[in-house]
Amino acid sequence: MLCEAASTLGVETVVLAGDPEDAATQVAGSVELGRATDASALAVLASRCDVVTFDHELVDLDGVRALEVRGAVVRPSARALQAAADKAHQRRAFAAAGIPVPAFAILDCDEHGDLAALRDLARACGRVPVVKSARGGYDGRGVVVATTLEEAEAAVRAWRAEGVVVVAEAPCDEGIELAALVARRPGGEVASWRPVETTQVGGVCREVRVPGRVGDDAAAGASALARRVADELGVVGVLAVECFETSAGPVVNEVATRPHNSGHWTIEGARTSQFENHLRAILDLPLGSTELLAPTVASVNVFGGEGTSPSLEAALAEPSAKVHLYGKASRPGRKLGHVTVTGTDPDDVAARAWRTAAALGTPVPADAAARS
Amino acid sequence: MLCEAASTLGVETVVLAGDPEDAATQVAGSVELGRATDASALAVLASRCDVVTFDHELVDLDGVRALEVRGAVVRPSARALQAAADKAHQRRAFAAAGIPVPAFAILDCDEHGDLAALRDLARACGRVPVVKSARGGYDGRGVVVATTLEEAEAAVRAWRAEGVVVVAEAPCDEGIELAALVARRPGGEVASWRPVETTQVGGVCREVRVPGRVGDDAAAGASALARRVADELGVVGVLAVECFETSAGPVVNEVATRPHNSGHWTIEGARTSQFENHLRAILDLPLGSTELLAPTVASVNVFGGEGTSPSLEAALAEPSAKVHLYGKASRPGRKLGHVTVTGTDPDDVAARAWRTAAALGTPVPADAAARS
Repeated sequence: MLCEAASTLGVETVVLAGDPEDAATQVAGSVELGRATDASALAVLASRCDVVTFDHELVDLDGVRALEVRGAVVRPSARALQAAADKAHQRRAFAAAGIPVPAFAILDCDEHGDLAALRDLARACGRVPVVKSARGGYDGRGVVVATTLEEAEAAVRAWRAEGVVVVAEAPCDEGIELAALVARRPGGEVASWRPVETTQVGGVCREVRVPGRVGDDAAAGASALARRVADELGVVGVLAVECFETSAGPVVNEVATRPHNSGHWTIEGARTSQFENHLRAILDLPLGSTELLAPTVASVNVFGGEGTSPSLEAALAEPSAKVHLYGKASRPGRKLGHVTVTGTDPDDVAARAWRTAAALGTPVPADAAARS
Repeated sequence: MLCEAASTLGVETVVLAGDPEDAATQVAGSVELGRATDASALAVLASRCDVVTFDHELVDLDGVRALEVRGAVVRPSARALQAAADKAHQRRAFAAAGIPVPAFAILDCDEHGDLAALRDLARACGRVPVVKSARGGYDGRGVVVATTLEEAEAAVRAWRAEGVVVVAEAPCDEGIELAALVARRPGGEVASWRPVETTQVGGVCREVRVPGRVGDDAAAGASALARRVADELGVVGVLAVECFETSAGPVVNEVATRPHNSGHWTIEGARTSQFENHLRAILDLPLGSTELLAPTVASVNVFGGEGTSPSLEAALAEPSAKVHLYGKASRPGRKLGHVTVTGTDPDDVAARAWRTAAALGTPVPADAAARS
């Protein structure tokens, strides 16, 4: 989607792809084969580009730092990327900067001390902490939401035995989950989209509603928080901040220093999409208007299912739905695309989006069907 | 833009490009090098595709017919393409079908008879006829709008001396110029967008306004005309019909059996763009809603200028403008892109679009500046 936005502005793209069959190769201006974790592949990519950017954070941070040292223009910087790629680093940095995060403990010493810290946290928050591997997590992977302390301890033990740094934190499940999206230029100019309500199942985003149940005050608070995070990290490009709503205001759950699934709705729902403003930001061009183009927007992710019969024909029979398929082969649970519907009635647009996603083979959770 | 729409739907594209540097190669899934006038290149392309379509009509019609004979799925068909590619054929076919066209004469016999027919037409309509080469015209090329009959005769003589078939026709300049856009599936399902007012300078479209000065009745008439043309030709895909407004209703000026410059506004201004519905139509998938997304839309073409200083930065400083650059090198008079603005005030959106196009180096005609 970033390549599509680039071609609209006449900006040439070179994509670093691990496999010549990767979906992005279909739309890239040209392709460089190699892994984002391979510093030499990054160096070759950088030699062909004016600006290097990212569509995920599973990169070799040392390789990115080496590019910066050699003078490549890397946006976002390795420093900003690190906050997205390393949860332990991020929680410490945010806490130090006074950015609200859940109560947490970093478990990175010996096993005994780690378990003691976990138990202390459990006692302090009166709940079983959520435990996460500090790096490499994605879409719910690397996160254990345990129901008993013993279960959480077992997860910590297993990770620590492999040398994995673990972040334990107080669960935040009192309010809705929301996501705030901003784009920031090198000089600090920031554009903010309307924050959205997200629905996660097992740590995986299934549905985004704009504005959903995010009231104006909560929206203002979440946007201000995202802006503060962007300034603190010196983000250049798009920053998505997934938050928990709490009685004390929004608390940071995850951050992504790139166009993010929670912002795909901006393609149709906002005057300027997150992809276009990411490009504008990293090229240090004026940001486009983030104005909403409809009173309400729903975006539902398309996943591969088991025993479902995906039909593009059935999906396109919903005339209001905008279907985005990423050109990936279907596997159960694999994110294959998304569907966006704009309109005036929140439940109606969500129902249309879910129907369309279901036609594309997406398993529909019972509560999603109930909500729409 | 067709490739961008295809990648959104997960549809793979193979582009036949004359030059590896062609703009479309930046967004194509893959590229086949060759000319559209080369039957063997068309055959190779067809062998790699489920459906063959076109983004211009300067193709080898015999080559396209040969593909059809060999069983390739070609949409639109050679028959439909011929109406767009051969004005003499088109005027005869439309007149025979009762589709309103300007009074015309086909000049394809000996020079003496041709000039006599030209003079007869001039006498009958009381005006100097416009003369056009039947084939190969594009953006005002191949059209002579003479002010004296002698001038028109000279143009006819020159073309006829080269064996070029000429269409002479009564000038239609009493009313506005408008364009109607429809998409048609193989089974005959048609979707129509709101007809638009176009402003041409020297036969080149400079500005599109939606709805412009096209009232509801004129719009209904133009849409019905476009639908009639689509049915008559058995068009599959998008059909654009450029019309003259006359007191007797719309009269066909030009037709294009493909996504057309007069429909670029649909990317932001309609729920489904002409590019997406062209794809849906040629793939025989349900057509998307053509609903307008704003009360008014203006789209202005970007051209290379002489002595202008194009600045993407200055263009993007207009936050409401959607800039589309085609990745072409600038030459004076070359169409390089377009700018679309949606909103509520027709003059305001047009002014913004013109300002943005001017920032991109487009020479602005005095009357365009005056109108906005």
